[in-house]
Amino acid sequence: MDERDGDVNEEHFAAGIALMRAALGDAAADAALARHAAALADGTADRVDFAVESAWGFMLHRPQLNLRDRALILLVNDIVQLRRDALRDHVRLALYAGLTRAEIDETLFQLAPYCGFPTTREAGTIVRELYAEIDA
Amino acid sequence: MDERDGDVNEEHFAAGIALMRAALGDAAADAALARHAAALADGTADRVDFAVESAWGFMLHRPQLNLRDRALILLVNDIVQLRRDALRDHVRLALYAGLTRAEIDETLFQLAPYCGFPTTREAGTIVRELYAEIDA
Amino acid sequence: MDERDGDVNEEHFAAGIALMRAALGDAAADAALARHAAALADGTADRVDFAVESAWGFMLHRPQLNLRDRALILLVNDIVQLRRDALRDHVRLALYAGLTRAEIDETLFQLAPYCGFPTTREAGTIVRELYAEIDA
Amino acid sequence: MDERDGDVNEEHFAAGIALMRAALGDAAADAALARHAAALADGTADRVDFAVESAWGFMLHRPQLNLRDRALILLVNDIVQLRRDALRDHVRLALYAGLTRAEIDETLFQLAPYCGFPTTREAGTIVRELYAEIDA
Amino acid sequence: MDERDGDVNEEHFAAGIALMRAALGDAAADAALARHAAALADGTADRVDFAVESAWGFMLHRPQLNLRDRALILLVNDIVQLRRDALRDHVRLALYAGLTRAEIDETLFQLAPYCGFPTTREAGTIVRELYAEIDA
Amino acid sequence: MDERDGDVNEEHFAAGIALMRAALGDAAADAALARHAAALADGTADRVDFAVESAWGFMLHRPQLNLRDRALILLVNDIVQLRRDALRDHVRLALYAGLTRAEIDETLFQLAPYCGFPTTREAGTIVRELYAEIDA
Repeated sequence: MDERDGDVNEEHFAAGIALMRAALGDAAADAALARHAAALADGTADRVDFAVESAWGFMLHRPQLNLRDRALILLVNDIVQLRRDALRDHVRLALYAGLTRAEIDETLFQLAPYCGFPTTREAGTIVRELYAEIDA
Repeated sequence: MDERDGDVNEEHFAAGIALMRAALGDAAADAALARHAAALADGTADRVDFAVESAWGFMLHRPQLNLRDRALILLVNDIVQLRRDALRDHVRLALYAGLTRAEIDETLFQLAPYCGFPTTREAGTIVRELYAEIDA
Repeated sequence: MDERDGDVNEEHFAAGIALMRAALGDAAADAALARHAAALADGTADRVDFAVESAWGFMLHRPQLNLRDRALILLVNDIVQLRRDALRDHVRLALYAGLTRAEIDETLFQLAPYCGFPTTREAGTIVRELYAEIDA
Repeated sequence: MDERDGDVNEEHFAAGIALMRAALGDAAADAALARHAAALADGTADRVDFAVESAWGFMLHRPQLNLRDRALILLVNDIVQLRRDALRDHVRLALYAGLTRAEIDETLFQLAPYCGFPTTREAGTIVRELYAEIDA
Repeated sequence: MDERDGDVNEEHFAAGIALMRAALGDAAADAALARHAAALADGTADRVDFAVESAWGFMLHRPQLNLRDRALILLVNDIVQLRRDALRDHVRLALYAGLTRAEIDETLFQLAPYCGFPTTREAGTIVRELYAEIDA
Repeated sequence: MDERDGDVNEEHFAAGIALMRAALGDAAADAALARHAAALADGTADRVDFAVESAWGFMLHRPQLNLRDRALILLVNDIVQLRRDALRDHVRLALYAGLTRAEIDETLFQLAPYCGFPTTREAGTIVRELYAEIDA
């Protein structure tokens, strides 16, 4: 038996969906809800909803750091690892949390000698593509 | 001939030493000055002083982000890469720039699911060892 | 207010301590309990106990993979990342879950051309040091 | 003179091609044979055939671990490093060796907190794309 | 006020553009000049031109290593990190500096067991795609 | 049955021991021979001797690149990955193959902005410690 079956924390899940909707837009939040419905139907909700619940619903709401700090932390993490999908989401989160584009660009510039130009160069391309999508 | 010989930017170098002294303490700043004197003597000042000048003297003083943000960026970079010596310096810089120990601990906690428990666990040990040294 | 204060899942926490005790020994389990007591006293239990609860108490008990498979997964993760403390714990977990030393040695050998000799060489040293401690 | 010219181990090479054919399909095996013929013609067979011979022909047949364990090891390696082409091949190998899709999905889920959500998220996308190709 | 505004080293910048033009072609050099003009117009020249100036204009001209050695160093760095855009530029630089395609291919082959087949395999694909573009 | 039992290529193994002796010294070569004898006794020679045979005995002797180039390639690989034991061996190999200490120091300096100061800083400490051992 699954030890955690049916054990999604509904309060965290709702908070996660709400923050996704505010930061990433309706499409992202609705996609997460659709995955949730499908997962409930096939019995994998404990796994499928984990990121929404634990990352967007729990971690980002803890009071020890404000949302702008938390978004900056994730932004740097994703740049250093060069992880495209997370970086795109977390740039949107950063903009929502109050970081300006100039601050994000400067973050990339500052990081270059610490994680390497080859990494920040590709991260910069991802970020500029996202800006273009937002402005389209 | 070295294309950059004699080309250390003295203003940035002095600013770097000053910030190192304030954030890392006299021992670290004096060690950097001693390396500087030795490097001038053997003709490698352009290489040896580069980090003091460009990182501590130039980058950390740019106005696009405040020092607390910049310290947080470096802190996350070092945790994700698990680089001990840089992490120790940048935790000291973070404390100098206004981050509290509780905020640094929370940064480690938030990062765990994004860069992995095995990494944040060892980073946490390094940070706690540094706290113990500071408190000794 | 902390959204998760007091919210440790006691069932998962107890399962985590039990598995730590079986795989890592009494010292490791008792240290985790001591950290737990201290964390309850200073209000950081939600953060401090997270790994015990979520990793040792929840994830490793899910029925979709048996414990030997899960230990092998963690072993490979730690070797590829070369994370010493996690590797030491997860070698102990692997031995507890039924992997033999010959299988662990072969895992290192197989991984060499996939993650690089320099990494498996240092991981091998860590593993042999642990074997020596166990045999002492 | 090349110290290893003409030195491909034919028994291992044949075993490698056979396992590639069984796990990856005729197209992959025939492509490897075509590279082999071209390499023999231009004198680079010792280099070009090395992966077929040493990885598919030698390592995966060693008796110290069964093929399911070996496939799981490679799967985890590729997820942690997020290497797309190897991951695709090794998911196919894993399915051939008896891992189910549910077990592969659970491997991704288990790894998330150990190597980071941003990595397992992109790996999951690669895996689901491959499933869709297999089902098409 | 930006501490470095107007502080681009024109000699290094010109040397960087010249080397980019020789190694990467007119399109790359002209694109860098266009970014330079735009950056001067919006006040971000100190940041935007940093890579041209410091990497292509300063570092690659230092006399302590010849250009072929420096290109080989960058080539290996980019392969190990698997950074596509830098790798493409630095393969072009390597060819300009006198490394042959056979030497670049052998570099990939040698690195495989040291940084892992999954990485050199994808790097090899990037390199072969670039060769095809050059030959087209 | 082990498919490769008794299958060590004696010519490559002897060449590997000879190069280890020349570059790393008698202690390293004799230790490798002692591991060889023990491995023959317990039936693991095919695994234990693989690095001596394939890395030191085969790869480093291929004629497509000279030994100085190959040592530089390994040096950069180890710095970027920050793998201490391999770095120490390969700095010794680099010195044996004709790289000077000034060239090795410059390699570290050039790499800093490409793989990050935190990494080259710790690599530099390892290299300087090795120099001190050699000079002692």
